[in-house]
Amino acid sequence: MSRVLLTGFEPFAGATRNPSWEAVRLVAAEAPDGLEVTPLQLSCVFDQAIDELRRAVREVEPELVVCVGQAHGRPDLTVERVAININDARIPDNAGRQPVDEPVVPGGPAAYFATLPVKACVAAVREAGLPASLSHTAGTFVCNHVFYALMHLLATERPTTRGGFVHVPSLPEQVLDQATPSLPTASVAHGLRALLATAAVRRTDLHTLEGTTH
Amino acid sequence: MSRVLLTGFEPFAGATRNPSWEAVRLVAAEAPDGLEVTPLQLSCVFDQAIDELRRAVREVEPELVVCVGQAHGRPDLTVERVAININDARIPDNAGRQPVDEPVVPGGPAAYFATLPVKACVAAVREAGLPASLSHTAGTFVCNHVFYALMHLLATERPTTRGGFVHVPSLPEQVLDQATPSLPTASVAHGLRALLATAAVRRTDLHTLEGTTH
Amino acid sequence: MSRVLLTGFEPFAGATRNPSWEAVRLVAAEAPDGLEVTPLQLSCVFDQAIDELRRAVREVEPELVVCVGQAHGRPDLTVERVAININDARIPDNAGRQPVDEPVVPGGPAAYFATLPVKACVAAVREAGLPASLSHTAGTFVCNHVFYALMHLLATERPTTRGGFVHVPSLPEQVLDQATPSLPTASVAHGLRALLATAAVRRTDLHTLEGTTH
Amino acid sequence: MSRVLLTGFEPFAGATRNPSWEAVRLVAAEAPDGLEVTPLQLSCVFDQAIDELRRAVREVEPELVVCVGQAHGRPDLTVERVAININDARIPDNAGRQPVDEPVVPGGPAAYFATLPVKACVAAVREAGLPASLSHTAGTFVCNHVFYALMHLLATERPTTRGGFVHVPSLPEQVLDQATPSLPTASVAHGLRALLATAAVRRTDLHTLEGTTH
Repeated sequence: MSRVLLTGFEPFAGATRNPSWEAVRLVAAEAPDGLEVTPLQLSCVFDQAIDELRRAVREVEPELVVCVGQAHGRPDLTVERVAININDARIPDNAGRQPVDEPVVPGGPAAYFATLPVKACVAAVREAGLPASLSHTAGTFVCNHVFYALMHLLATERPTTRGGFVHVPSLPEQVLDQATPSLPTASVAHGLRALLATAAVRRTDLHTLEGTTH
Repeated sequence: MSRVLLTGFEPFAGATRNPSWEAVRLVAAEAPDGLEVTPLQLSCVFDQAIDELRRAVREVEPELVVCVGQAHGRPDLTVERVAININDARIPDNAGRQPVDEPVVPGGPAAYFATLPVKACVAAVREAGLPASLSHTAGTFVCNHVFYALMHLLATERPTTRGGFVHVPSLPEQVLDQATPSLPTASVAHGLRALLATAAVRRTDLHTLEGTTH
Repeated sequence: MSRVLLTGFEPFAGATRNPSWEAVRLVAAEAPDGLEVTPLQLSCVFDQAIDELRRAVREVEPELVVCVGQAHGRPDLTVERVAININDARIPDNAGRQPVDEPVVPGGPAAYFATLPVKACVAAVREAGLPASLSHTAGTFVCNHVFYALMHLLATERPTTRGGFVHVPSLPEQVLDQATPSLPTASVAHGLRALLATAAVRRTDLHTLEGTTH
Repeated sequence: MSRVLLTGFEPFAGATRNPSWEAVRLVAAEAPDGLEVTPLQLSCVFDQAIDELRRAVREVEPELVVCVGQAHGRPDLTVERVAININDARIPDNAGRQPVDEPVVPGGPAAYFATLPVKACVAAVREAGLPASLSHTAGTFVCNHVFYALMHLLATERPTTRGGFVHVPSLPEQVLDQATPSLPTASVAHGLRALLATAAVRRTDLHTLEGTTH
C-alpha cells in the first residue's frame, strides 16, 4: 500500500467552487488499487498554504505528494515540470496578500523540477481517455508557490518522497457563457487516478516527445 | 407527446467516432419527459445526407427537428442561428465529393434562420450546467449543408415544423494530445436534453444579449 | 479610372482610435493605380451609419464599395462573405442604442452575399504579404448592419455597383498588455490596397479552398 | 557608450526566414542612442549555438546580451524570465539533433532568472506602442538552450554582464493563411530598440503586476 497525499485548493478569485478540490475528493473517495490517498484542501493564501501542506506531510508521511490546482482556460490536465522561486501575484490571495517579485523561499534555488515521472503521467492520463500535456510553467501565484515549497521541503527534508503538481481545467459550470474550455469533475478525477497509479509505481520516466519550441 | 427528430453524423475526416451521433443516441435512449425522440445517423456526404434527412422527416412527421454536428475546437454547445446557401468544402466528404462555391439549393434564398428559440436554447443548456453560446456561422461543409436543406424543407413543405442545428465539441478521447477543448458525451447529452425540452415548448425567444461585435 | 467608395468607422466601445478608419485614410491618400478612392468615416451608430453610407453612394456613384471595420481579436484581414438581416447588439452603439433581435431592413431577405470576388480578394492580400482569410460571419453589431444595408441598397437600387466588407485586426497600440493579435495601420493599408486593386478589375472569383467545416 | 550583443536565429523547421534575425539586423543598423549593438546570427543547432554565443561574448565583451528568438503563435514581444536546464526537442534542430530530457549544462542549477529588468523591459516596449508581456517559459528547444547557456556563462564567468531573452511573433508573410498572430519586422525592431535602451540603463526593476495565476 502506497501512501499518497493529494491536495486541492479552496475556491479563489471570487469563485464558489474549485475543480481541483472537487476532483481530489472524488479520487480519495475511490482511490486506485494499492494506493491510500489522503485528501487535503489547501487555503489559497500565500505561506498559510505551505504551512498546511508541511503539517500534512509530517502527519501522513506519504511516499508521493501530488498537488492539484485550477488553470482557467487550459483545455487539458497539465503536468507541471518546473516550480520557480517567485511569488508574483496578479490578484490578491484569499487573505488579501499580493506579493510581487518575492522569493517563495529566500535563498532557495531558482527552480525545482517535479520528481514525478512527468511524461509517464501525461501518457497515463491520455491512456485513460483524457487530454493531457506537459507544462513548463505553473505561473507565479499560489499554485507555483505551493509547488515550489513542496519540492523544497522534499529536497531538504524528505528526499525519498516524490512530488509534483497538476493543473486541471475549469468546470463546465464555471464557464457557462465564456467560450472557455472545461471538463467535468468526474473526467478530471478519472484522469488523476490514472496519473497517481502510474506515479506511484514508476521510478523512471518515458522519453517521449513532449517538449515545446517556446 | 411531442415528436422530435434528432440527427447526428457519422465519423468523418478520418475519425473513428463522432460526438454528435454518440450524444444523440444517449439523448434518445433517455429522452426528456414528454418528448418522443427519434435518433437518426446521417452520412457525412453532400446530398445523400439531405436525402436521408428528408426521408426521416416524412416518416417521423416531427414537430421539431434538431440536427447536431461536431465542431472541433469549439469549447461549448453552440446553437446555430444562420444556414447559408453555399457548399464550399475544404476537405472531401465521406464519398470523396468536394463541392466548391456551389449552392445547397439552386435558386434558394441566401440564408435561412433557425426557427428554434435559439437564445432560450442557449439559456437552457447553461441552466443545465453546460457552457453554450449562439453561433452565426455553421461553416460551409456538410453541417451547414444539412442545416440549410432542413430549413428549406421546412419552409417550403412543413411550415409548422420547427428546426435548427447545434454544434458540439470534440470528445476528450479525440484530443488527447492536442490542447483542444472537449466535453464528454454524457455532458453533451445532458445539455442537448435541456435544449430539446425548451425548444419543444417555447414558441417565443428570450431577448438576452448574445450578439457579437464581429 | 474606377470610382471606389471606401469606408471606415469612428472609434467605439470607449476606444480612442479605430484601425479601420486609419487604414482607409492611408489607402485613400495613396490609392492603387487606376482607382479613385473616396474615403468616408461612418458613425458607429445604428441607422445613422446607413444614412451616411447611402448619401455617400449617391454622391460618389462608385463602381465599388468596400466597408471596413475592426475585429478585435482576429489576427488577419478577413473578407466577409455573408451579411445577415439581424441587429443584435451586445454593447450600446455610440448613441447609446442597443437593438436586440431586430431586422436591419424589415421584410428584407435573411442574408446577402458580398458581390466582391471574395476569394480573389483573400488571395490578393496574401500575395501582398499580409495574412487574410474568408469569414462567414460579420457579427450582429454595426459592422454587419452596415454591410447588410450596403448589399440591400446595391441589390435594390444600384445593381451594377459591387460591394463587400472587410474586417481588420486591432492596432498594436490597442493591445499593449492584452496578448491579442494586432497589425499596424501601414500593413493593413497595404493589404487593403491589394484587395481593392483586385476587386476593381476581377468579375469572377477564384475557386480556391477557403471553406470551413464549422 | 554601452556595448550590447544582440543575437537572432537562422530560419528553422523548414522556414526560409526568421523574424528574430531580421529584427536584430534592423536594430543594429539603427541602434538606440548610446548603444553600440553587435548583431549575431546563431545557428538553430544545439551546442553549436552556444559555441557561437560564447565566442561572440568573448570578442565583444558586452555589458548587455539579449538573445531573440521566434515564438510562432504568440501575438506580442515576450520577455522571458526563466531559463531551465532541459533540452527536450519536439522537432530536430537544423543539424538533425533532437535531444530529449538532457541537461543544457550537466550539473548546472535547475534554472536561471534573466538579469534584465524584465518588467521595465515589458513596460518600455509598451511605451513604444508595441504589445509585450512577461513569459515564464522559453520552451525546451534551442531558444531556452541558448538562454540557459547564456545565463550560466554570465553567472560563472562574467558576473557584471547582464543578459536575457526575448521571443517575438512570426512575420505576416509566414502566416498568410494560418489565422495566427504576426507583427512586421519594423514593429518588432522598434519594440526591441525601446527594450534595449531601457535594459542598458536600468539596474532595478519595476514592481508592476505581470504575474500569472498559472
